[in-house]
Amino acid sequence: MTTHGHPQGAAGTNLDPWYDNYAERSAGLSASEVRALFAVASRPEVVSLAGGMPFVSALPADLVTGSMERVMRDQGAQALQYGSGQGVPALREHILEVMALEGIRASVDDVVVTTGSQHALELMTKLFIDPGDVVLAEGPAYVTALVVFKSFQAEISHVAMDEHGLIPQALRESITRLKAAGKKIKFLYTVPTFSNPAGVTLTWERRVEILEIARANNILVLEDNPYGLLYFDGAPPHAMRSVEEDGVVYLGTFSKTLAPGFRTGWALAPHAIREKLILANEAAVLSPSSFSQLVIAEYLKSADWKGQINTFRGVYRERRDAMLVALRDYLPQLSWTVPNGGFYIWLTLPEHLDSKAMLPRAVKELVAYTPGTAFYADGNGRNNIRLSFCYPTPEFIREGVRRLTTVINGELELLNTFAQTAPLQTIRAEHGISGPPSDLG
Amino acid sequence: MTTHGHPQGAAGTNLDPWYDNYAERSAGLSASEVRALFAVASRPEVVSLAGGMPFVSALPADLVTGSMERVMRDQGAQALQYGSGQGVPALREHILEVMALEGIRASVDDVVVTTGSQHALELMTKLFIDPGDVVLAEGPAYVTALVVFKSFQAEISHVAMDEHGLIPQALRESITRLKAAGKKIKFLYTVPTFSNPAGVTLTWERRVEILEIARANNILVLEDNPYGLLYFDGAPPHAMRSVEEDGVVYLGTFSKTLAPGFRTGWALAPHAIREKLILANEAAVLSPSSFSQLVIAEYLKSADWKGQINTFRGVYRERRDAMLVALRDYLPQLSWTVPNGGFYIWLTLPEHLDSKAMLPRAVKELVAYTPGTAFYADGNGRNNIRLSFCYPTPEFIREGVRRLTTVINGELELLNTFAQTAPLQTIRAEHGISGPPSDLG
Repeated sequence: MTTHGHPQGAAGTNLDPWYDNYAERSAGLSASEVRALFAVASRPEVVSLAGGMPFVSALPADLVTGSMERVMRDQGAQALQYGSGQGVPALREHILEVMALEGIRASVDDVVVTTGSQHALELMTKLFIDPGDVVLAEGPAYVTALVVFKSFQAEISHVAMDEHGLIPQALRESITRLKAAGKKIKFLYTVPTFSNPAGVTLTWERRVEILEIARANNILVLEDNPYGLLYFDGAPPHAMRSVEEDGVVYLGTFSKTLAPGFRTGWALAPHAIREKLILANEAAVLSPSSFSQLVIAEYLKSADWKGQINTFRGVYRERRDAMLVALRDYLPQLSWTVPNGGFYIWLTLPEHLDSKAMLPRAVKELVAYTPGTAFYADGNGRNNIRLSFCYPTPEFIREGVRRLTTVINGELELLNTFAQTAPLQTIRAEHGISGPPSDLG
Repeated sequence: MTTHGHPQGAAGTNLDPWYDNYAERSAGLSASEVRALFAVASRPEVVSLAGGMPFVSALPADLVTGSMERVMRDQGAQALQYGSGQGVPALREHILEVMALEGIRASVDDVVVTTGSQHALELMTKLFIDPGDVVLAEGPAYVTALVVFKSFQAEISHVAMDEHGLIPQALRESITRLKAAGKKIKFLYTVPTFSNPAGVTLTWERRVEILEIARANNILVLEDNPYGLLYFDGAPPHAMRSVEEDGVVYLGTFSKTLAPGFRTGWALAPHAIREKLILANEAAVLSPSSFSQLVIAEYLKSADWKGQINTFRGVYRERRDAMLVALRDYLPQLSWTVPNGGFYIWLTLPEHLDSKAMLPRAVKELVAYTPGTAFYADGNGRNNIRLSFCYPTPEFIREGVRRLTTVINGELELLNTFAQTAPLQTIRAEHGISGPPSDLG
């Protein structure tokens, strides 16, 4: 429609007639590096160590089909209808049982069912973030949480982690610095157990200490816990929410313990926040899917769901082990985290390597990973890689690490051939070595 | 947690320790009048003419169960897994067939599947509305669209309608006035076919004229069409999107033609907007439910879905007729709209009656409706009532209108007893007649 024509900018590349009409916040929505990777990783010849897809084939389909059939037989009209914005009461009761495994005691009134825990993240951000407000996020942090925060124009400030999770002293220093700068800190975002992407777990002592710091500074803690029940070598510390009720909003999901295809997760929130979450949920989707909720409630009522979680643990433990063995065999000179659960290992590359710049070579070698920069809002992470062991078989994991080794060695060779100290990017540019191929764009 | 204590305001009623931490936009999220009504209307003794629940019992459960079983048998791993942020391609192909019934030609690339069309409304508002931007909305307009617009701090400006839908001249005048005031108008929101709540349909001539006005003023049209296929006396005019491609974002849903429990709807948007919608969808929910999408795709592939829509038409036609007959029999002195489809009739009360103030008396008489004020952002609608004929049987509809007549006659009597001209609110206050009972609060 030519009359909608936006005066073309100097670059002359914008053909969107609505270019001038978007909200400011929409500038924060850009295709993530992970998104581009999905296209690459879906080719069958590529071993993808990039995605975070659960291995749903370990779930017997008849467990799900049986639950569906019973729901349609006994509660069909309810399953097909709109529900409440808070979620089906029977499911919320079962959610209390799930959370009790991590030491959480709560009222069914304080659970709000959401369209995956991702949507709880979106709703919490919508409720709390004005443009310029600060979100403290562990660094590295879950990429699509960062996307949500940016989409509401939050300023993201990372807090350093080590192999024991968030560092309390780093949190104190961040708060002091941000407060001195007049910033308004709205919440601390963390995946304390088997973090994505770092694969590390916050110790019990640090959980308590971090909650004390948050309380003293009037900062809400957003505890995102998708992986907590998927432990391999003994249960992790109880959830932060088990210690502190009024200062924590806890997010859970059935995506990893059952299946993501139902898009069913939840938030457990203090009363006043829970009320606002329900209103925000109603505005956004009217109600979460009744059908998904009733099927999951029936599954939790009738199937051995704890046994099924144990099955998942076994699958992922074997894959984690395969990845650790392959890393030790192929890349003994590097360092990586050793997760006791979840889906991810965080690999540190030799000093001058750039994981993002290296990705095209990796794809050429038919292996995919997620560059560390995806998990920082501030450009950090060039030296890191997130490796996922959740989806490929142990054999493919080993082959993937072998291919990755070829890539890393090739990059090191390039580095050594030209210079010991110049950044690899400069070497690439000077020698006309190309960037990412167009099919990654 | 006392250390989070917010200094209690003068009123001393706020006990939320996070009171000072919410985003400004969260003030726009308050419980709607419709929400309070749902609690009332759910009592079995109340005839509810208030809600908008489709009569899902008219859908044979085995049609749905069969689709589910085939999906789990043939595509189980895909159904249980994450999908793309745009939605399953097979479903998007079927959506083109559905939209073709309303004259729409489109590319499968421009369809974005959402968690009900409600979520498309939320995402469009997130993408386009900065605080203070204007949304032009037909008046009266769908209540939960208004809630979404307010939740992103839009300024809502209503455009008048008559029995032929939006009035083009009123639209022109609104635009002129708002532009003169320096306002930024982001889009025009309309349900042109069998509108909610007015039950009226925009004529073909007006569709063309309104699209011309929008185009000339660089205003995007958000065409929300949940009811278009549910016509009773001959097909309505084709969708506005059938005339205009680049200036219309069209929203559709399976909630009324199949079932709301799947929470599956869609947006059809021009290329650049569609790209942003996908990113916003990914941020909000990662992907819409694969399971719901595949079940609906299978249903559309294997079941006589057009025959099923015809079944729904028959059910709702009978109920509309029952309501029209009851209105003519019991309230011949009043006026109402006569819808050719959809779920709603818009009733105009005698001049001095207030539909919101009258609601407690209605509940006492065991009938529920939605007061007209719910559908305006500016306090209008006190003189109107939305009556839903979608859910109760014809017998209950007639009984509901009979009870409503008792209520209206009672209010008129009250009015006549005390004064002919003073507003009923004043009379109530002067005579100590109570407001809504606490269980409506």
